[in-house]
Amino acid sequence: MKRHILCINSGSSSIKFALYATGDGEETALGSGAVERIGQSAGRIWLQREGQGRVDRTDRFSDQRGALQAILEALQEAGCVAPDGVGHRVVSGGPRYLEHCRIDADFLQHIREYLRFAPLHLPAEIAAVEALQMAWPDIPQVACFDTAFHRTIPEVASRLPLPRNLWHEGVRKYGFHGLSYEYIVSRLAGAAQGRTIIAHLGNGASLAAVQDGHCMDTSMGLTPTGGLVMGTRCGDLDPGVILYLLEEKGYDGPQLERLLNHLSGLLGISAISGDMQALLRLRASEPHAQQALDIFAYSARKQIGAMVAALGGIDRLVFTGGIGEHAAPMRWAICRGLEYLGLQLDPLRNDAQNTVISTADSVVQVQVIPTNEDLIIARHTQRLLFPRSGDQ
Amino acid sequence: MKRHILCINSGSSSIKFALYATGDGEETALGSGAVERIGQSAGRIWLQREGQGRVDRTDRFSDQRGALQAILEALQEAGCVAPDGVGHRVVSGGPRYLEHCRIDADFLQHIREYLRFAPLHLPAEIAAVEALQMAWPDIPQVACFDTAFHRTIPEVASRLPLPRNLWHEGVRKYGFHGLSYEYIVSRLAGAAQGRTIIAHLGNGASLAAVQDGHCMDTSMGLTPTGGLVMGTRCGDLDPGVILYLLEEKGYDGPQLERLLNHLSGLLGISAISGDMQALLRLRASEPHAQQALDIFAYSARKQIGAMVAALGGIDRLVFTGGIGEHAAPMRWAICRGLEYLGLQLDPLRNDAQNTVISTADSVVQVQVIPTNEDLIIARHTQRLLFPRSGDQ
Repeated sequence: MKRHILCINSGSSSIKFALYATGDGEETALGSGAVERIGQSAGRIWLQREGQGRVDRTDRFSDQRGALQAILEALQEAGCVAPDGVGHRVVSGGPRYLEHCRIDADFLQHIREYLRFAPLHLPAEIAAVEALQMAWPDIPQVACFDTAFHRTIPEVASRLPLPRNLWHEGVRKYGFHGLSYEYIVSRLAGAAQGRTIIAHLGNGASLAAVQDGHCMDTSMGLTPTGGLVMGTRCGDLDPGVILYLLEEKGYDGPQLERLLNHLSGLLGISAISGDMQALLRLRASEPHAQQALDIFAYSARKQIGAMVAALGGIDRLVFTGGIGEHAAPMRWAICRGLEYLGLQLDPLRNDAQNTVISTADSVVQVQVIPTNEDLIIARHTQRLLFPRSGDQ
Repeated sequence: MKRHILCINSGSSSIKFALYATGDGEETALGSGAVERIGQSAGRIWLQREGQGRVDRTDRFSDQRGALQAILEALQEAGCVAPDGVGHRVVSGGPRYLEHCRIDADFLQHIREYLRFAPLHLPAEIAAVEALQMAWPDIPQVACFDTAFHRTIPEVASRLPLPRNLWHEGVRKYGFHGLSYEYIVSRLAGAAQGRTIIAHLGNGASLAAVQDGHCMDTSMGLTPTGGLVMGTRCGDLDPGVILYLLEEKGYDGPQLERLLNHLSGLLGISAISGDMQALLRLRASEPHAQQALDIFAYSARKQIGAMVAALGGIDRLVFTGGIGEHAAPMRWAICRGLEYLGLQLDPLRNDAQNTVISTADSVVQVQVIPTNEDLIIARHTQRLLFPRSGDQ
């Protein structure tokens, strides 16, 4: 039996959504859209149905609830049936939620304990769950965690080198982008056997080291600030830099938060932009843009090297995410120097955005696979709300 | 002509020293010793002359000057001639001092600007220089910087992913343990051609990636807190952890400094000790000791993998420092999993502390070389104070 699943990805001022028909082990995309600039004077909603017309209008959305109401109305207006279930992307399940789960009263109580681990993301996600529950209490909801894919990381990789009481409080490596990694592993299917490194490179960027489909390590840590150099985030850092800023420069917590999450990375290095495509356009004329790209590639190359050491070798490297899928020059820059692994990119395949971009005789296969986090949300929402016999 | 050079390594409550005869391109060790517990009620001084007797007595040393006075007296008492020059280990030369240099009034003024980059180390080092200058103004002095070896690191590796104004203030990757790395490279001589990774593993621990004798990258950053997991320091960290401790747990700067520099690393993980030898003794009976060793090895292995990626391959891995020279089980644990590089340890050679511990057919040669930072200080002090024609 077909079910209609609405997938929700809530940010602080926007909600992205997608509608899927699911059942019989398949998911069919019916449409997708977004509400933008929630809480601002001129908001916008758009909805593109697969192979059909487009809704796109400006409006004012006072809050998450108003935005969700508008999404359900737009779906109805576009001829979609009401959803049988809603699946939410939830950035962190903290130490408690190792698996995606159906949302109940308990969930809403416990997830609040982890607000402090993901203060930039969780509040909007919780607000969306509550708004839907208040307005449409009969539609069941599911939480799909970006941390769940990383539950298999062994403690030698997830324990931070800090006093043990902090581990008990939940201070550990969780990792993020898990829905994206889960999608890539499902797409690889049997090819996920062996040692795969997945590079999810977008505004946020991370790596996952995957052995036979199971995550063994990832570059992000407690929060999405760690790991690789990103658009506006610095990634892992010598903590002495932060002590210097605190003690010698008089920064306080909010100033540090702004510096490390919003003014660093590509933006900080280039002093131009945190956007990869903008920097790629400017690199010929702006040396600081080129330098930011060089440092991004160098950071990614080194962390790929670290993940290869964690896995004891590498059979496959997969690029995904906005930069991973579309920025061929960055894929080239990252892989240059990794020939010692038996990894050889084919420049023509790389420029053509082929699925396989390594040469025929490259020992390491290098692939580009567009990610699809919504599909993973739809799949788990179907499975958890409407299990077939034999599922669960 | 032979000169006598006194090498000084000043800590906050101790001064280690060594006496060398130098000249004609050779350095001969004459003796070494230390003053311990400076400023405490029961201090100690000891001096071991090469192939001769030993001075070892308790005394009270009120400050650096008293300690240095005692060192010069002990040398005289042991029949040594007065030094012709003194060379100091200086942890950081900041952005100004890229080369070891003779100490003059300018130096003492400028080096103070970098106190904030090395607040745990520089104050005692400056105090020792000043005490010697006041008491024995006729003995010329030289500063040998732990950062100097790293001056060849390209900007792609030394620039932190932070706003550009911080680079101009001197916030960048400096690296440390440079005198040790310089010694290892000098010992390798022609064998330093190619791509070498040097692992200086002691209470503080770092890696250097060296191409044809020139440093290309290192694991420590602005301060000695970054990079690898260490005895009581955490190494590189997701900055989000520090924001969490600041904002959610109410830590202030001094509390964070204590946590990250003195309560983390092996000590934090094991909750037993930050001392490698103590943990190795306890690992069979104490699971947390074993876990700390596992995480230390895993962190070192990953960062070696990152440095190999930075160099585009590896020809040679050298272990040095207290742990690198003496902890055979840790060398084994670090290298297990690096076979994909063509690196194969010989377990018998490793246990026997041979100079070469890789197998005969290992593509990567693995060596153990005891470091000698004093010799490097003596060599540069001779060169800078008493140049032969053709020297500089």
